[in-house]
Amino acid sequence: MEKTDVLVIGGSASGIVTAMTGKANYPKKEFMVMRKEKQVVVPCGIPYIFGSLGSSEKNLIPDTGLSKANIKIKIDEVVSIDQKKKVCTTASGENIGFEKLVFATGSTPKIPQWLKGATLENVFTIPKNKEYLDNVLKKVQGCQKIVTIGAGFIGVEISDELAKTGKQVTLVEILPHILGLAFDEDAARRAENCLTERGVHLITGTGVKELLGDTKVTGVLLDNGKTLDADAVILSMGYHPNTELAAQAGLVINERGFIKVDEYMRTENPDIFAVGDCAEKRDFATRKLSSIMLASTACAEARIAGMNLYKLGAVKTFNGTIAIFSTAIGDVGFGVAGLTESMAQAEGFDIIAGSFEGIDKHPGTLPDTHTQSVKLIASKDSGIILGGEVIGGPSAGELTNIIGLAIQNKMTVSSLLTAQIGTHPLTTAPPTAYPLIKAAETVSKKINI
Amino acid sequence: MEKTDVLVIGGSASGIVTAMTGKANYPKKEFMVMRKEKQVVVPCGIPYIFGSLGSSEKNLIPDTGLSKANIKIKIDEVVSIDQKKKVCTTASGENIGFEKLVFATGSTPKIPQWLKGATLENVFTIPKNKEYLDNVLKKVQGCQKIVTIGAGFIGVEISDELAKTGKQVTLVEILPHILGLAFDEDAARRAENCLTERGVHLITGTGVKELLGDTKVTGVLLDNGKTLDADAVILSMGYHPNTELAAQAGLVINERGFIKVDEYMRTENPDIFAVGDCAEKRDFATRKLSSIMLASTACAEARIAGMNLYKLGAVKTFNGTIAIFSTAIGDVGFGVAGLTESMAQAEGFDIIAGSFEGIDKHPGTLPDTHTQSVKLIASKDSGIILGGEVIGGPSAGELTNIIGLAIQNKMTVSSLLTAQIGTHPLTTAPPTAYPLIKAAETVSKKINI
Repeated sequence: MEKTDVLVIGGSASGIVTAMTGKANYPKKEFMVMRKEKQVVVPCGIPYIFGSLGSSEKNLIPDTGLSKANIKIKIDEVVSIDQKKKVCTTASGENIGFEKLVFATGSTPKIPQWLKGATLENVFTIPKNKEYLDNVLKKVQGCQKIVTIGAGFIGVEISDELAKTGKQVTLVEILPHILGLAFDEDAARRAENCLTERGVHLITGTGVKELLGDTKVTGVLLDNGKTLDADAVILSMGYHPNTELAAQAGLVINERGFIKVDEYMRTENPDIFAVGDCAEKRDFATRKLSSIMLASTACAEARIAGMNLYKLGAVKTFNGTIAIFSTAIGDVGFGVAGLTESMAQAEGFDIIAGSFEGIDKHPGTLPDTHTQSVKLIASKDSGIILGGEVIGGPSAGELTNIIGLAIQNKMTVSSLLTAQIGTHPLTTAPPTAYPLIKAAETVSKKINI
Repeated sequence: MEKTDVLVIGGSASGIVTAMTGKANYPKKEFMVMRKEKQVVVPCGIPYIFGSLGSSEKNLIPDTGLSKANIKIKIDEVVSIDQKKKVCTTASGENIGFEKLVFATGSTPKIPQWLKGATLENVFTIPKNKEYLDNVLKKVQGCQKIVTIGAGFIGVEISDELAKTGKQVTLVEILPHILGLAFDEDAARRAENCLTERGVHLITGTGVKELLGDTKVTGVLLDNGKTLDADAVILSMGYHPNTELAAQAGLVINERGFIKVDEYMRTENPDIFAVGDCAEKRDFATRKLSSIMLASTACAEARIAGMNLYKLGAVKTFNGTIAIFSTAIGDVGFGVAGLTESMAQAEGFDIIAGSFEGIDKHPGTLPDTHTQSVKLIASKDSGIILGGEVIGGPSAGELTNIIGLAIQNKMTVSSLLTAQIGTHPLTTAPPTAYPLIKAAETVSKKINI
């Protein structure tokens, strides 16, 4: 029987990072990453194969990192696990013994059971699967009218990319606004304007009843009775964690369908870990279970698991998920970290929000200057920063990360007011009106009234 | 006699921010900003009037912020101060009484006394003075061969901008590398390559002996005996704080020539504050006196002064200067926060440095992807981050600010390893190889050996 010290199931971002971090921390241990896919796509890059990249070949995570680190890659699928004997059985009939096992099995696109017509030809989802995506791309290239259902990040980004290639794209969202689970209304409206200006037709506040067609999809019947013509439909209605194998192996699955883990990313079996989309998440602020799936969060969890595989470093625990997103629509960058105003209110936090709109270079007469706005959400009593939103130019992603770091350090509005930041005409807002600090001032004023 | 509650002397970044912050915190108090200049230039934007902007008109700080906040602007110059009577006398002969006085008098370009020929025609400095700069721009536009002396940020940026307009520019620096006081050698070399590729001729490790010419400058005689032809010479050899007025008024000037202040930016007279280039600075890590002059630091100090004018908020003190710089040469962004490796070593810190080079978008096949490298410097014993350097694309400035915030929060390498960051193909490095985290891993490995 083949044996390895650490067996990682799943070869996407969190699997790779767990193995790489683990190997770096425990260089004498043997590591194996087992995955079904011959080649691994960059998960967040998937929307861009439909436009900017033009092919999945340009969106691959190379195996060189793993190979160089002496981590074995095996293309196979674990079909059952014996926790007591510490043995996995694979689809090809092999048995592989392990000391430590890591679930990094990811997630799969949701297709609602009630959705009639979901199995029609030219109805696609967006799984992290190169062969499937290559087929989607090929088929979609021959289509003119495309309807995307679900305006989360994936739906928005794919719609934008397809519109960029000249397709007639309609994006349908049941919530009142696109990206409505990520952003407050103001930022969502800005994103809607950007997307509309770039040629995507938006239908919000409207659900989908049925996909129409005999063998091939021809249209989408909306909740409001209207019909959209469609040569192809893309379902971007969320993802569910892949936990069948874990459940079958007897591991605890939480009520949201994720593998239960502690702050070291260990399941109830201390030799079995879970990371990434399949692993339980708790919100950093509310401590409630969370269903946020992000490659960046997945990698943070993977680093924790990798460091703690064989010994626990007391401080190296996962502190709960802070949703830190960013995206760009055209040259406008959007980002959000932590709680939005509406989320914080829904959770019962007594909060103060404050905003400031400035510019991302200075003076604003410099070429390619974008407006840059920051909204901060702080706890009213403690002044602790709970969240923030950014709209800006190409630096919006890293500015969002600054807010993310402020949240993780439990910084207060007051400590932001006394914080030092670096500024430069070509790279940042002006020092006199750096929107993050100015937004903190707005919050501070409101707290002190 | 005219009276105001708060009189701010100096109308550039730190003067404006002190007045604006003060007025926001003490809305019932009257604020006056007195300045010599009719119009105020954006200090860090000055290099860009020579190329990207093309005129100082596009590089002005408007007065609207002050006016809207009901802050009086007076164009005049304070020539003497009576501390006991709390009265300033101006050049126009007015007396103005005050409750609180703030020095925001800035700095003036250094011209070394030993430099022969510094008063020749077409030898210029770069003061924050619109009329003077307008004249420099006009004169320089008629010149072909320009020599810049001193390769700090101003010298580098002006040289790059002038070269962009087709001038033949030579930049002379006495230190072995350009930006040598800001960056470690590796980053400085990268900046040198960028600048050279963009057509600036560099002469490093070579001092200047004399400026040549009868009435108008015609050349520069170097330390090594060689001569450079020049139609114009720009001296960018540093700045000294403007403290004559403060000294004359009896305030304490420290051994580096700055107005002595405490952590609330108060001089020894608790009713007199000083902020910005003229105010004493201490290094965040070493606690030693520092001579770093940055608009961003100036504004941080100004916020502290503004908040503490009439009452002290215990937590609202200035924690010492963290040099956080960024710049861009062409489309390559450079940034540094805190101590560099060589500075830390010179100061006697027992440090570990670690670097990682990745990309600023992902996959790297996306258009406009830049390499992004991060170097981190940490204390060996505590793991506390002391500094970092960034080379990347348009997000390099904000990524540098992330390091700045990590330093201010006294984050350790370990806390960076467990930190969550947000990533997105179009806005950041990949989650699997975010250079800041990977550099922390490199440091961590070296610490644990």
